[in-house]
Amino acid sequence: MKFIIQREPLMESVQNVIKAISSRTTIPILSGIKIEATNNGIKLTGSDSDISIESFIPIEENGIVYVEQIETGSVVLQAKYFPEIIRKLPDKTVELEVDEKLKVTIRSGSAEFSLNGQDAEEYPMLPQIHNEDSFDLPSDMLKDLIRQTAFAISTLETRPILTGVNVKAIDNNLYFVATDSHRLASRQIPFENQTLGFSSVVIPGKSLNELNKIIGDTQENVNICIMQNQIMFQTKNVYFLSRLLDGNYPETSRLIPEQSKTIVYVSTNDLLRAIDRASLLAKENKNNVVKLVTKPNNQLEVSSNSPEIGRVLEEVTAKHINGEELKISFSSKYMLDALKAIDSDQVKIEFTGAMRPFIIRPTENDQILQLILPVRTY
Amino acid sequence: MKFIIQREPLMESVQNVIKAISSRTTIPILSGIKIEATNNGIKLTGSDSDISIESFIPIEENGIVYVEQIETGSVVLQAKYFPEIIRKLPDKTVELEVDEKLKVTIRSGSAEFSLNGQDAEEYPMLPQIHNEDSFDLPSDMLKDLIRQTAFAISTLETRPILTGVNVKAIDNNLYFVATDSHRLASRQIPFENQTLGFSSVVIPGKSLNELNKIIGDTQENVNICIMQNQIMFQTKNVYFLSRLLDGNYPETSRLIPEQSKTIVYVSTNDLLRAIDRASLLAKENKNNVVKLVTKPNNQLEVSSNSPEIGRVLEEVTAKHINGEELKISFSSKYMLDALKAIDSDQVKIEFTGAMRPFIIRPTENDQILQLILPVRTY
Repeated sequence: MKFIIQREPLMESVQNVIKAISSRTTIPILSGIKIEATNNGIKLTGSDSDISIESFIPIEENGIVYVEQIETGSVVLQAKYFPEIIRKLPDKTVELEVDEKLKVTIRSGSAEFSLNGQDAEEYPMLPQIHNEDSFDLPSDMLKDLIRQTAFAISTLETRPILTGVNVKAIDNNLYFVATDSHRLASRQIPFENQTLGFSSVVIPGKSLNELNKIIGDTQENVNICIMQNQIMFQTKNVYFLSRLLDGNYPETSRLIPEQSKTIVYVSTNDLLRAIDRASLLAKENKNNVVKLVTKPNNQLEVSSNSPEIGRVLEEVTAKHINGEELKISFSSKYMLDALKAIDSDQVKIEFTGAMRPFIIRPTENDQILQLILPVRTY
Repeated sequence: MKFIIQREPLMESVQNVIKAISSRTTIPILSGIKIEATNNGIKLTGSDSDISIESFIPIEENGIVYVEQIETGSVVLQAKYFPEIIRKLPDKTVELEVDEKLKVTIRSGSAEFSLNGQDAEEYPMLPQIHNEDSFDLPSDMLKDLIRQTAFAISTLETRPILTGVNVKAIDNNLYFVATDSHRLASRQIPFENQTLGFSSVVIPGKSLNELNKIIGDTQENVNICIMQNQIMFQTKNVYFLSRLLDGNYPETSRLIPEQSKTIVYVSTNDLLRAIDRASLLAKENKNNVVKLVTKPNNQLEVSSNSPEIGRVLEEVTAKHINGEELKISFSSKYMLDALKAIDSDQVKIEFTGAMRPFIIRPTENDQILQLILPVRTY
């Protein structure tokens, strides 16, 4: 194998595939990056067996030549050193050559690295996906769906299914739902594709967070293909494969209260900043608890109390407060996470009493729903 | 005590004084910030008893009013929460008020914090310095002196005196010298002040690194005053006090070879980048060792070898190589530190054989000297 490649696209591809590589892998060859040279270009692969990422550098794109003088072949190189080596090479081009003893020589300008490679035959084959049940989502929308829900997954392995995001197609909507059983984040989008064979899958939150780092904030489509136990996200040059979580995701729709006793309309940012300040002293509490009390004249009192340190109290002027008076306590972290995911200047918060879950939505649409269970302090 | 203060200068002062505060202090009150309101302005103090920092906010400066409605007094507030509280307050001004029970109320916009204060009478008195033996250095020059030497201090407590930087006045020069006994960094500047009572002191490296973060990269003077076991650095509104290290600093001048067998003139950046690349594979070695070999036609061969990972080899074209052929090995980290401190496009490196210390200087002056002991590998 031999080729000469532009350093910039090589660097970018390496950065993509190393996101799948774990230094704690139990399969030694997976601590490496697989490099394949074909007549079409160079393919890099990284995998921890849960997530696999392939990144392709074509020989030419938009009239720019990326790869030259290809002699086909493949090798696996230690991922620990390769990215830093590529980043620090002196020249704009990099020559990579493998001899029959799997010695890899990397040349750039006056620098020459000689690294011990491994046999690419030993690298596991990635599962093949047949693009039958596939659909497209714009990249920026997929990023929104992840950002607005994946933070609410459980980090505990006691209920593994909750460490994933439930993606389901119901009627003409696609839903992303995550819950750690103390709060829930849900986002829905209109979804016309009725020919899909899938109705509900659970994608590991970790996979979605890595995917989110790789795909761009553009309107380019990501092709999504779901198989029995795998999901594939494909962009022009990146192929991202994740296993799905086994098991049934709990039915979450019945958690959402259907009626409310107190409705608050308030500026997202005013409330967010007041709760952020109140949380400064709440950090000493185990649950970061802040209190919210409705007051006359559309005032919301946000407060927190840590006997050893002190107390913080702030009034936020709401746009409207409708319904019963309310005193409620909740985790400031959950509230801050939810408000940051709302993506709207104004939020509508619906309470059903101090001990019942409450829901937060943008005032102007129902596509985003954040639900939080209160904390018993009164 | 009560005052209303602009949030920005208060924030800046808090950031300065917390650099002296350690969360692991054995004197509980030193985990707090002392706040004093006088008729001239507000003084903040932080201390870990080795370093003490005072920062003063005058009631007015350059026609801008910083502090208003002062009622004099003092209090000590927990440093753990205060900086974040000030940073996140909603308004441009902050009102701070202490009642007779040492309850501190902080108001800004609609936010109100109520914190438990401590009695400022319990805060230790800082040593008083009499400005007798004082001299001035421009702030940017002091920063250079620190940056070019303090990295070479020892981090081991086996020889405590080496954890400091030796500052000495000899003839018409002021020297900053640091060594960990494997390498040495020295910077000298012309120094006319002959009336000083001090000839040599050792300032803890930690103190100088904290000082470096506080003083600006400007030509404003820093007044430096040395007492028996303390040194004080004073700028317009900051007063930085550090203890000095006890004991005699070793005589380092005899470590510096007086003659050399091989002299290399080379671009600082070319050599630095080649050694940086070679060090990528050298990281596995305990000492980060790279090799340097002189070759014909002014070539320097930089290389490193890690049997398990691979090998890196690079030729750097020197401007001149004079004298004997040379093969030498050294710590890439020490070499990178030294080259970064040189502040010159071209360096002159003087070797006296593979087992003798070598020195690195800018080609155009002798004010900076970096010395490194080689590693025995040949």
